[in-house]
Amino acid sequence: MIYEKEAQDIVNQRIDSYNYNLNPKGLYEPIRYILSMGGKRMRSVFTLLGCNLFDDDVSPAIDTAVGVEIFHNFTLLHDDIMDKAPMRRGMPTVHQKWNDNTAILSGDAMQIEAYRWMTKTPLHCLKPVLDLFSQTALQVCEGQQYDMDFESRSDVSLQEYINMIRLKTAVLMACSLQIGGWIGGAGDKDAHVLYDCGINLGLAFQLQDDLLDVYGSADLFGKKIGGDILCNKKTFLLILAFDKAQGETLRQLKFCTTTDTYGEQEKITIVRNIYNELNIRELCQIEIMRYYQDALQLIGELSCSQERTKPLRCFVETLMMREA
Amino acid sequence: MIYEKEAQDIVNQRIDSYNYNLNPKGLYEPIRYILSMGGKRMRSVFTLLGCNLFDDDVSPAIDTAVGVEIFHNFTLLHDDIMDKAPMRRGMPTVHQKWNDNTAILSGDAMQIEAYRWMTKTPLHCLKPVLDLFSQTALQVCEGQQYDMDFESRSDVSLQEYINMIRLKTAVLMACSLQIGGWIGGAGDKDAHVLYDCGINLGLAFQLQDDLLDVYGSADLFGKKIGGDILCNKKTFLLILAFDKAQGETLRQLKFCTTTDTYGEQEKITIVRNIYNELNIRELCQIEIMRYYQDALQLIGELSCSQERTKPLRCFVETLMMREA
Repeated sequence: MIYEKEAQDIVNQRIDSYNYNLNPKGLYEPIRYILSMGGKRMRSVFTLLGCNLFDDDVSPAIDTAVGVEIFHNFTLLHDDIMDKAPMRRGMPTVHQKWNDNTAILSGDAMQIEAYRWMTKTPLHCLKPVLDLFSQTALQVCEGQQYDMDFESRSDVSLQEYINMIRLKTAVLMACSLQIGGWIGGAGDKDAHVLYDCGINLGLAFQLQDDLLDVYGSADLFGKKIGGDILCNKKTFLLILAFDKAQGETLRQLKFCTTTDTYGEQEKITIVRNIYNELNIRELCQIEIMRYYQDALQLIGELSCSQERTKPLRCFVETLMMREA
Repeated sequence: MIYEKEAQDIVNQRIDSYNYNLNPKGLYEPIRYILSMGGKRMRSVFTLLGCNLFDDDVSPAIDTAVGVEIFHNFTLLHDDIMDKAPMRRGMPTVHQKWNDNTAILSGDAMQIEAYRWMTKTPLHCLKPVLDLFSQTALQVCEGQQYDMDFESRSDVSLQEYINMIRLKTAVLMACSLQIGGWIGGAGDKDAHVLYDCGINLGLAFQLQDDLLDVYGSADLFGKKIGGDILCNKKTFLLILAFDKAQGETLRQLKFCTTTDTYGEQEKITIVRNIYNELNIRELCQIEIMRYYQDALQLIGELSCSQERTKPLRCFVETLMMREA
């Protein structure tokens, strides 16, 4: 059986083995660039661990895992254009280093590359894998659209927010895990359990991101702390705070998120103090742990032995502890 | 057997039958909008006629044909952002009617939709169809990148230009035709002949576009005549003119395409006069006819009866005569 680190290495090796030094350079160089930035390769690790639950040999799942990973990196590339983000993983984003047109077109090519890799899925499950992948990829676009729609709305409910991150983040993790299971030979029941498990992991993961943006360590997190607060991003924390706040606190929170009165650090401090006063950090942590516990319980419901689920459980525990 | 018009109707019906009134509206409304603009549906017609060469029943090829058509419309959507084009088929482009972010994301979703339809290809040829489609889609991106690269170059050769339009335009027509053949049951030899035939048709079609931009009727063509001349686009005509021009004519052509001295209509007239002087129109028409003749000859090499190839030959003849 393989563990997270080994799965990550397998995926990185396969990605590196591919020759992206093709012409025209303007198309392929940005793809090489963003794929070489690294990252956790979480989604492809899910695919390999999902496969490994049912089959000792994960090799039939590697190309599919790479496909999922390339698709995820494509979404980052295009999201960065839409968000006008200058940096990603401590490096200039593609549209910043080149230009918007290059970022659009290279992203388009990456999406095709993702499908090209997905199409190497073993023939016996090619069609169901592609159907689930396409459905999922569309949902990721829907999530991104809702996320952008939320920017100009002030009445986003917690339920709407959870639905948005389910689409934008969780379904791709769920899909990665289920596809891995399918390739390994999982039956329908196990496949669905894996999907639900991935949804819970994805929701927990995104809520952690929201939390780390406010309470993380800048050194570990690799991003500026408080970024979401500065751009009034509707995160779980902010929506929850608006739900809980009353009287003077509510007035202060409204004022703070609708005016440009405060300096950057000052604004972050005020909003964080409101969060502290309302217990937002703890409430968010409770939600996160609930999703992780649900995921672990679902893993327990799989038809495979406790022993076989160990790498996946270890990976989930690593995610639970993450500070970056 | 079905002819162009019937094939077009079948594709349009299938496209219309699909419910694009989904949420979020910001994502799906632009897709519905660009698909409702119409167009010749050439690529999907190729797929259905290709299938019909070998099978009386084209129904197994319809979803695949729709997939190819949606992919083509996706490329138009994203190309329009990159070219900052305000109009398409007499209507505002998506990025103009909405905004760049909407156009990027809706385009991404369309590309996924294209694959979703392609995945409905009959299982017995699903993998080869998807492999050829992905290879082709990547080549289309390569063609678009070369086209953008050419904007800042003054030494583009005719050979480079033909290679660019082969990638940007011809390979998708070739792929559409070959895929249709495969679904109909074509053997390897016929499939390759269809591909080569599509390449010739695509090259002829694009050269016609270049020609119509200078010598077409604005009413019929639906675009402003002389648009390529105004933006110094490296078309077959301009590159050929630079190849042929000498002395004062060459000096005048260089001056005209590198300075902003002339008014719009004046510039178009000067360049067109140079083209006339150098016989560019006739030389281009000869090339176009050569490609069409090669395409017709390849159709003659197919293993099916003359009778069965009639709809495809008719379609090619319609294309030869086109003024729009």
